[in-house]
Amino acid sequence: SSLPVSPEPLSVCNVVMLRIPDLIKKKRDGGALSDEEIAAFIQAVTNKTIQDAQIGAMLMAIWLKDMAATETEALTREMMSSGEVMSWPEEWAGLVVDKHSTGGVGDKVSLVLAPALAACGCKVPMISGRGLAHTGGTLDKLESIPGFNIHQSTEQILQILDSVGCCIVGQTEMLVPADRVLYAVRDTTSTVDSLPLITASIISKKGAESLSALMLDVKFGRAALCKDLSSAKELAQSLLRAGNGLGIPTGAVLSCMDATIGRCVGNSLEVVESLETLKGNGPEDLMELVTTLGGALLTITGSVFDLSEGRKRISDAVTGGAALAKFQDMMEAQGVSAQAARSLCSPHTDYYSVLRRAEHQTELEAPGHGPVLDLDGLVLAEVLHKLGAGRSKAGEPVNHSVGAELLVSLGQVVKKGDPWLRIHYEDPSPTPDQINRLQNALILGSDENAQTQQKRTLVKELLLPD
Amino acid sequence: SSLPVSPEPLSVCNVVMLRIPDLIKKKRDGGALSDEEIAAFIQAVTNKTIQDAQIGAMLMAIWLKDMAATETEALTREMMSSGEVMSWPEEWAGLVVDKHSTGGVGDKVSLVLAPALAACGCKVPMISGRGLAHTGGTLDKLESIPGFNIHQSTEQILQILDSVGCCIVGQTEMLVPADRVLYAVRDTTSTVDSLPLITASIISKKGAESLSALMLDVKFGRAALCKDLSSAKELAQSLLRAGNGLGIPTGAVLSCMDATIGRCVGNSLEVVESLETLKGNGPEDLMELVTTLGGALLTITGSVFDLSEGRKRISDAVTGGAALAKFQDMMEAQGVSAQAARSLCSPHTDYYSVLRRAEHQTELEAPGHGPVLDLDGLVLAEVLHKLGAGRSKAGEPVNHSVGAELLVSLGQVVKKGDPWLRIHYEDPSPTPDQINRLQNALILGSDENAQTQQKRTLVKELLLPD
Repeated sequence: SSLPVSPEPLSVCNVVMLRIPDLIKKKRDGGALSDEEIAAFIQAVTNKTIQDAQIGAMLMAIWLKDMAATETEALTREMMSSGEVMSWPEEWAGLVVDKHSTGGVGDKVSLVLAPALAACGCKVPMISGRGLAHTGGTLDKLESIPGFNIHQSTEQILQILDSVGCCIVGQTEMLVPADRVLYAVRDTTSTVDSLPLITASIISKKGAESLSALMLDVKFGRAALCKDLSSAKELAQSLLRAGNGLGIPTGAVLSCMDATIGRCVGNSLEVVESLETLKGNGPEDLMELVTTLGGALLTITGSVFDLSEGRKRISDAVTGGAALAKFQDMMEAQGVSAQAARSLCSPHTDYYSVLRRAEHQTELEAPGHGPVLDLDGLVLAEVLHKLGAGRSKAGEPVNHSVGAELLVSLGQVVKKGDPWLRIHYEDPSPTPDQINRLQNALILGSDENAQTQQKRTLVKELLLPD
Repeated sequence: SSLPVSPEPLSVCNVVMLRIPDLIKKKRDGGALSDEEIAAFIQAVTNKTIQDAQIGAMLMAIWLKDMAATETEALTREMMSSGEVMSWPEEWAGLVVDKHSTGGVGDKVSLVLAPALAACGCKVPMISGRGLAHTGGTLDKLESIPGFNIHQSTEQILQILDSVGCCIVGQTEMLVPADRVLYAVRDTTSTVDSLPLITASIISKKGAESLSALMLDVKFGRAALCKDLSSAKELAQSLLRAGNGLGIPTGAVLSCMDATIGRCVGNSLEVVESLETLKGNGPEDLMELVTTLGGALLTITGSVFDLSEGRKRISDAVTGGAALAKFQDMMEAQGVSAQAARSLCSPHTDYYSVLRRAEHQTELEAPGHGPVLDLDGLVLAEVLHKLGAGRSKAGEPVNHSVGAELLVSLGQVVKKGDPWLRIHYEDPSPTPDQINRLQNALILGSDENAQTQQKRTLVKELLLPD
C-alpha cells in the first residue's frame, strides 16, 4: 500500500487557467496574490466553480497570512465587480454620498443623517444591513415602522433618490454576490475578523453604490468590534486605502463606543429617538456624530467651504425641520402609509399609535448615590439581545418592541432609588441574573467625581481625504 | 449600515456541545486541541454535520499551525474509530502484520512481501491504494492480472487470510470513513503535505486492520514525497509515534528513492518482475527491501530470534518457491482463474499469454560510453505517467500495459548505441521531447568512475520498536 502524493489540482478557473489549489498554496505560503489571481478566485466564488472547502481553506490562509494593501485593494475591486455596479444620472455627479459604521449600541445615525444630507441636496443610496449579535441593524429599526419596505430594486432606488434624495434599503441579490458567499463562509469558519476580509466586504458594497464621497464611522471601545483606538485606527486606514483605491474620496471618524449612542436601545425605541432628534430634541452625542459625518461629506464633495460650515448646514437641516420632511417623504416612498408617516412626524404625536409598544415595562432603581460615571453598553446590548431585540443567526426574527431607555445621562448625580433604566420587554422577561448584570453596568462615582465631569465627546479623530 | 460582528457559531456537535467554529478558532490561534475536541471534529466529519468550508478552514489551520504529537495521536485514534475496526480469531494473536510505503517508482515490494510473510505463517490483511501522480499503486498493478478482484468484504478478507494467509485489497466503504472525506478535501485545498494529516491518514487505516506489527517504508530522494533523509526521518518518527500510540508495535526503514526499485516500471511489467522475483530471479534492491521489511516484522512479532534470522526466513520463502505458491493461491482466492494463476506461476511461462502486452515497444540507445552512475526515476515516472501508466485524478483509468524496462543496471559500463531502456506504449506515443528527457535521465560517468562503483543499498536506516 502506498501514500498517494499531491495530485494535479482539480479545479480550473478563468481563461489564463489559474488553478484554485495553486492560489490557495501561494497564500498558504505567505505569498502576495496578483491582481489576476485575486480576480480568478473571486470569479470562481461568483460562478460557483470553486468548492466550499476551497473557500474555507483560502479564507483561513488569508486570515493567518494577511494581505498586502495592494491585494486588499484588488480583492475589494473584484468583489465590487462581481455583481451590478450602480450608475447615476450625470447631473448627480459629486452629490452621491453614503456612510458606513462598524456597528455600535444604539447607533441610529443613519436614520437622522440620510434625510439631513438629502435636505442639503445630496443623493444618499444607503444600502444597509441587519443586526447580528449585539449590534443593532438599521434595517431592523426601520422595519419596526409598519409598512416600511427595505426591499427596493435598483430602478426604485433611482426613483426615490430622484424624488426624495435618500433611501435606506437592503442589499439586492445583484449587488456584490461574491460578498454574500464569502460572508456566509467567514461566519462559520472563524475567519470574520480579518482586516483584508472586513475591508473588502465593507468597501466593495459601498463601491457598488458608485459614490462621490464616503465617510466611515470606525468605532472603538468595549461595545465595539475594535476594543481599542489603535486597532480601530488600523482598520480605518485599511478601509480608507481601499475606498480611495476605488477612486471614491473617503474619510473616517474614530469614535468611542463604550456606553450607548443616545438614550434608547432597541429597534422601535431607536426610531422614536431618531424622530425626536429630527424634531430638534436630539441627544448631544448623536448630534455630534450626525453633524461630524454629514459635515465631512459636504466638505469632501465641495458643497461647503469647510467642515464647520458643513456641520452647521447639517445641524440646521436637522433642527429646522428640513430633514424631518425628507424622512417623512422617504417613509412614504418606501411603503409607509401617508397617514402613519405624517403622524410619526407631527409634534407631540403618540408614537405608539403607529409603532408597537412592548407589553411590559419595568424600571430599575439606582443602587446607590452619586454621579453616573459610566455605563457598560455591551452589557445592556447583550441583555436586550437575550430578551429578543437582536438575533444570533442570520434569518432569525427580532422583536422590534424590545429595548431600553436610559433615564439618566452621564455625569448626572442620582440618588439611591431613582429610576435609571426603563426596560421594554415581552417574552421572555428579564431574569434576576440579567437584572443584576444591568445594575452592575451602571457605574456611580463619589461626590468629588461630580466636580470633574467634562462634556463627553464621542469623536476622537477625524481623517479626511487629501 | 453596520458591520455584523462575529455571531454565535452555527454548527453544534456532540454531547458536550463543542462548537466547530470554536475548534477552528483554537487551532487558528495555535492552540492544542484536546482529545474531546478532536473527537468532536472527527465525529462531525463522519456524521456530515460539519460544513465543507469548515473542513477546509480547519485543515488549513492544521497545515499552518501544526499539531503536537498528542494531538496527532488523538486524530489518528479518532479517525480509526470513525468506522469499522477489524477483529481476528484469537489464535492469530501476534501473527497479523502489514507494511506501508510512502510511495516509490517501481515499488512492487507488497506483491512479493505479502505472500512471503504468509509463507512464514503470518496473516497479512494488506489494504492498499491506487496510484496518483507519479507513484504507482499496488491495486493498479494487481488489476493488470485478468480477473483479480481487489474488492473484498471484511468476511471475504477473513476467509482468504484463513485459507491463504494474505490478501491485497482496496479500502472498504466501512473502513475509516473520516479519512475518505478529509483526503478528498486535502486534495483540492493544498493541505496534503502536513505531517499530522499524513500521519493520521496512514496510521488510522493500518490501525483499523488491528495489527500485531507494522513496518513502514519511508522513502527519501528525488522520486519520493520526502526529498531528503532528514524530512523522511521526521515523517518516520511521527508515524512511529502514532502507530505505537495505537498499541501496534511499529518499525520503519528509511530507504533511498532516487532511481527505480528493480528494473520494471508500469503496472503489468511490475507484475512480471514480481513473479520473476518469486521464482528466485529478483533484482538485489527489491530483495533487500523485501527481506529487511519482512525480517523486521518477523522479529517484532517474536517469530524469529533476530533480524538476520528473519531476513533468512523471508529470503528462503521467496527463493524456495513457498511465497510463489502463496501468490498463486491469493490470485485464485481473489478471482483469477486457476489456469491463469497456474500459468503465471509456472517456470518459463509466456506472461503475455495471460497479461496484455502494449502494442508498441521501442528501445532507447545509450547516448555515450561509460558506467551508469545514476538514473532519474522521477523523470522516468513522469514520462510514463503522461503515456498513460498513471492517473492525475482519482477515478481516472490507467493503461496497465504502458511501462518501461531498464536494460542496464547501475554501475554497468555501456557503449554508445547499446539499448538501455525499452518503452512499452500505445496511444499516445512518446514525443521527441519526452525521449529527450529520458535520454537526459541516464547519467553516464567516465571510465575512472567504473572502478569506484560500490554495491548499492537502498535501506539507509532501520528503526525497530523497543
